[in-house]
Amino acid sequence: MKNNRGNLFVVSGPSGTGKGTICKALLEKRDDVVLSVSATSRSPRPGEENGVHYFFLTEEEFRNNIDNGQMLEHAVFCGNYYGTPKAYVEEMLAAGKNVILEIEVQGAMQVRAKHPEGVYVFVMPPSLQELRERLVGRGTEALEVVEQRLKTAEREFGYIEKYNYIVVNDDIDAAVNRFSAIIDAERCRMERNIEFIKEVCEG
Amino acid sequence: MKNNRGNLFVVSGPSGTGKGTICKALLEKRDDVVLSVSATSRSPRPGEENGVHYFFLTEEEFRNNIDNGQMLEHAVFCGNYYGTPKAYVEEMLAAGKNVILEIEVQGAMQVRAKHPEGVYVFVMPPSLQELRERLVGRGTEALEVVEQRLKTAEREFGYIEKYNYIVVNDDIDAAVNRFSAIIDAERCRMERNIEFIKEVCEG
Repeated sequence: MKNNRGNLFVVSGPSGTGKGTICKALLEKRDDVVLSVSATSRSPRPGEENGVHYFFLTEEEFRNNIDNGQMLEHAVFCGNYYGTPKAYVEEMLAAGKNVILEIEVQGAMQVRAKHPEGVYVFVMPPSLQELRERLVGRGTEALEVVEQRLKTAEREFGYIEKYNYIVVNDDIDAAVNRFSAIIDAERCRMERNIEFIKEVCEG
Repeated sequence: MKNNRGNLFVVSGPSGTGKGTICKALLEKRDDVVLSVSATSRSPRPGEENGVHYFFLTEEEFRNNIDNGQMLEHAVFCGNYYGTPKAYVEEMLAAGKNVILEIEVQGAMQVRAKHPEGVYVFVMPPSLQELRERLVGRGTEALEVVEQRLKTAEREFGYIEKYNYIVVNDDIDAAVNRFSAIIDAERCRMERNIEFIKEVCEG
């Protein structure tokens, strides 16, 4: 197609739905997809690289970036800032890449307020029962933590209507194919091709 | 996905853009896609089968069907009625099939008034120059007919904004893949999965 700019995809969904796995698989499958790199004010852990795992900023730098409108969204967890720097996303979109932001619902709603033209995708488990089993099956969490995550999931479901698509992860390959179809289809949306249409119509 | 009903796809586009070829290729590629069968009041030509090429109706039957609201859209060409019977489309949608209606813009607008939930796809040539070359290249039409078709194309372009997607036919395989992605993506639209979302959220 003729629209050369990439599209912004914001992906949310409860812990345990496999949204991280889906995004990584998309990245391997398509060279027109990149993941956004988050910024954080926490210290790098051993092995973490600046610009790969996170952009590491001081708290002061992070706060300046917020004040200067350079963050697409941000939140504070355990006393550390986390967020999405606008510059990297903009650069990738301009280069024709489809940028995936994997963030929780509150951050997604911040991005949506600024980017209504973005594509909002909610990854769903096939059922709550299945989600519970996946969280328990990980075996890494105490049962209270599992219950806590399920409660959080229910709160997150409250935002589903704000998303454009749901991708049910009943099967990882099927889910990746669905997401991939969404990326291709969005390129064809009429309102994303106004300039090309004008070009053709004006001969 | 969990929504079992199929979706309605209405496809328009100027003569010479290859929309018929795209639709036939989709039909071969996917067993969840069917083409709608039109009705007509003209007489069957040798080899034409009722229910396959057309539903053949008498003029009186056709007019009764219109009066009883049994036609999704209709028009008169050269004194014969042509149109889309509602029953066949409804039956196929209920059976989970994605139904493709290949009709011109006036008919598409009639369908759109009744089915805003349908998906409206406009097939575009890569350029007007390319469209002209394809029409001339067919070699079957006098140059005046080509000019007439290009004028019609320009009028049809005036309706593009009423469509949800454009599919540029710069390459037949690429165009078929784009359309196929649109079919898969539309199954994932949030508003088409309200019942499934309720099911999951209510545990």
